[in-house]
Amino acid sequence: MRRPGEGTTPAGTWGDWLAPAEAWQRVRDVWQPALVGQEGVPLTGARGRVLAQDVRAPADSPAFDRSAMDGYAVRAADTAAAAQDVPARLAYAGDVPMGAASPIAVGPGQAAWVATGSMVPPGADSVVMVERTTREGETVLIRQAAKPGDNVVRRGDDLHAGAVVLRAGRRVRPHDVAALASMGLAQVPVRRRPRVAIIAGGDELVSPGAPLAPGQIYDANSYAMAAQIDEWGGEPAILPRVHDRPEEVRAALERAVGGADVVLLSGGSSVGIKDLSAEAIDAVGRPGVLVHGVAMRPARPTVLGVVDGVLVIGIPGNPVSAMIACEVFARPALESVLGVQPARQAGTMGDYSTQGRLAARVRSQVGRRDYVRVRLERTAEGIAVHPVPGGSNAIRSMVDADGLLVVPAEREAVEEGATVEVRLF
Amino acid sequence: MRRPGEGTTPAGTWGDWLAPAEAWQRVRDVWQPALVGQEGVPLTGARGRVLAQDVRAPADSPAFDRSAMDGYAVRAADTAAAAQDVPARLAYAGDVPMGAASPIAVGPGQAAWVATGSMVPPGADSVVMVERTTREGETVLIRQAAKPGDNVVRRGDDLHAGAVVLRAGRRVRPHDVAALASMGLAQVPVRRRPRVAIIAGGDELVSPGAPLAPGQIYDANSYAMAAQIDEWGGEPAILPRVHDRPEEVRAALERAVGGADVVLLSGGSSVGIKDLSAEAIDAVGRPGVLVHGVAMRPARPTVLGVVDGVLVIGIPGNPVSAMIACEVFARPALESVLGVQPARQAGTMGDYSTQGRLAARVRSQVGRRDYVRVRLERTAEGIAVHPVPGGSNAIRSMVDADGLLVVPAEREAVEEGATVEVRLF
Repeated sequence: MRRPGEGTTPAGTWGDWLAPAEAWQRVRDVWQPALVGQEGVPLTGARGRVLAQDVRAPADSPAFDRSAMDGYAVRAADTAAAAQDVPARLAYAGDVPMGAASPIAVGPGQAAWVATGSMVPPGADSVVMVERTTREGETVLIRQAAKPGDNVVRRGDDLHAGAVVLRAGRRVRPHDVAALASMGLAQVPVRRRPRVAIIAGGDELVSPGAPLAPGQIYDANSYAMAAQIDEWGGEPAILPRVHDRPEEVRAALERAVGGADVVLLSGGSSVGIKDLSAEAIDAVGRPGVLVHGVAMRPARPTVLGVVDGVLVIGIPGNPVSAMIACEVFARPALESVLGVQPARQAGTMGDYSTQGRLAARVRSQVGRRDYVRVRLERTAEGIAVHPVPGGSNAIRSMVDADGLLVVPAEREAVEEGATVEVRLF
Repeated sequence: MRRPGEGTTPAGTWGDWLAPAEAWQRVRDVWQPALVGQEGVPLTGARGRVLAQDVRAPADSPAFDRSAMDGYAVRAADTAAAAQDVPARLAYAGDVPMGAASPIAVGPGQAAWVATGSMVPPGADSVVMVERTTREGETVLIRQAAKPGDNVVRRGDDLHAGAVVLRAGRRVRPHDVAALASMGLAQVPVRRRPRVAIIAGGDELVSPGAPLAPGQIYDANSYAMAAQIDEWGGEPAILPRVHDRPEEVRAALERAVGGADVVLLSGGSSVGIKDLSAEAIDAVGRPGVLVHGVAMRPARPTVLGVVDGVLVIGIPGNPVSAMIACEVFARPALESVLGVQPARQAGTMGDYSTQGRLAARVRSQVGRRDYVRVRLERTAEGIAVHPVPGGSNAIRSMVDADGLLVVPAEREAVEEGATVEVRLF
């Protein structure tokens, strides 16, 4: 019996594989899925969801000139000569109630009481804060000269009617919830969560909670990837595990493709299983496998394919490789079907990033893009970036890491002391 | 009728109020709540929750010596003289199955087939990758000298039995889910979500979805704060709104305190309402109001009190102030009752932070801590930090901001071009 790979030259030249960006481009040339559908969610469920439409302000906000202070609404011209010891004397015109149209107007020589948030009454053009006033019966002493507009929030100052406040493709943050609420939206149009099917294969895998027999290990990848998908706004479904048999992998993939937007086929780590994934992708639909191995470390054995319009990612079995393959390929896949607009944040390695000084030399190989797990430490000199040791099997190294340092393909090392950018988890 | 504040000197000296850290310390001197209770959640629901116990590895992981490659398990000594053209000739001893104890042992002069993840059979001390081998019937040609330990992941290499893998107080990330799964945990002990009651008061407020009458505005703060609380791991409950009447505020607070870990009493923005909040806190229980106003901007009118062991935060009515008061006080409150350990990330302004160059001078006042909304822009020279204009009523300024620049109380300005740290949203 011939073993796959027997007698061949082991990976020496990274040029045999596509760079991650090239691999992704090859997928995108073929895989141009429609955005997932939209649905309405209540305001309290909108956080983290992706807007399906531009949201325009239906009306000016505030919808009326509001007082920004407790005090008296006046005509600024009436206070032109006022000072602490030489107050202007105005006639008290009444109180403006909160939450209602002003029942009174301010005429020349008059002042009306307003609380913060009250409507500024017709006729008034400014508000003098209460601390600069004294009320004496029907007279109000104003001890400060006001300019028109002082302490008034103008109609439309925050949001103009018709202006786009939030763009389609934005992930809703708590602050955006404030904006949505202030526009009066009770339901928010968002993209439905993309469905991501996770199939793990491997005779050695056992579900957490069950006892382990010798030679077995717990299935960590299914749960880790499900948590990642959940974090990125997808709806993960962990499907029943499969054994290392071609017909089982094929049947499971066929079922999964029917109900998912993306399928993660987490092969065992062996050559055999990896080939089973590729074989199943080719068997189940067109065009099948597009990329078989990527010039990156970890996760070189990643397989990318498309089956009848559904992206299928063959995920390496080592847990670190699995999580990084997911980060590098499943995450942009989700963002594609969600229509996520790139975050405006400067941390544009995809998300948040920070800079620091590398505390130890990191070696790589030319032609290979490395994703190095790093731990950050705040020191008197700034942020120190420590590479975390551990092979691609070492889950602990991912637990201990704060983020990833990317070593581009053209570098064979990054020197100690270099300023580097770290993509934060 | 005398208006509150009438004739008094307006805020000129920030020394009248406690700094945010001092205010918080005054609360913590009194408010020393027990951690919220614990509960078990399934692994798929653990992401984002806070661990209630240290999690120790129940057994070594891996639990046996595993092969890190597809290839042949050998005794290194048998391959000492092997090279590409001068292979060592070993006797094929059989295949080690995946997911099972090895049924075979490797004796001197023998080699057994192993896949990545298989148990390394007894007797073998190393694995030669398949690419460096050729099988000829019952003979295996080994074309590379192995050293003991080559391509073997030792028992316990990732996790040692009994070692603390994850500490109590850690917020579970997807990578931590991998670790929990690899230890076989199907249920994860976490803290229950702290209950945070939100009461908004103000005659001018209307719920999103309802029509607005003149002088009214939508209640944005309740929904924004609920989203913040949700993001930080709490369980928000938006309670019925109250009108600007002392007995209503008092009754609502009394009901809320019974079932919540923390209460947010979001007063309207007026002096009157702020005083209603403080009055209610004092009326409902002991010790009542501890802090009335904080030397910060925005959110100076924040009130902090404790009522029968429950923290009550009087939140200013302007939406920007409300969200920042929540960030500065409600967030550490939640972390206290959850027992959250400070994130190890270097971004220790609380969470993630990044550095950049300030693109425009920011003015402040000595004695006041400013939380300035900023937008980040990546430029050829690095990250540019742009202050976002807008008063504390301007929700739009929070939507447009990527984070907060903190100006400490001792600074009266931060100059254009200064390198600053930005706490990212």
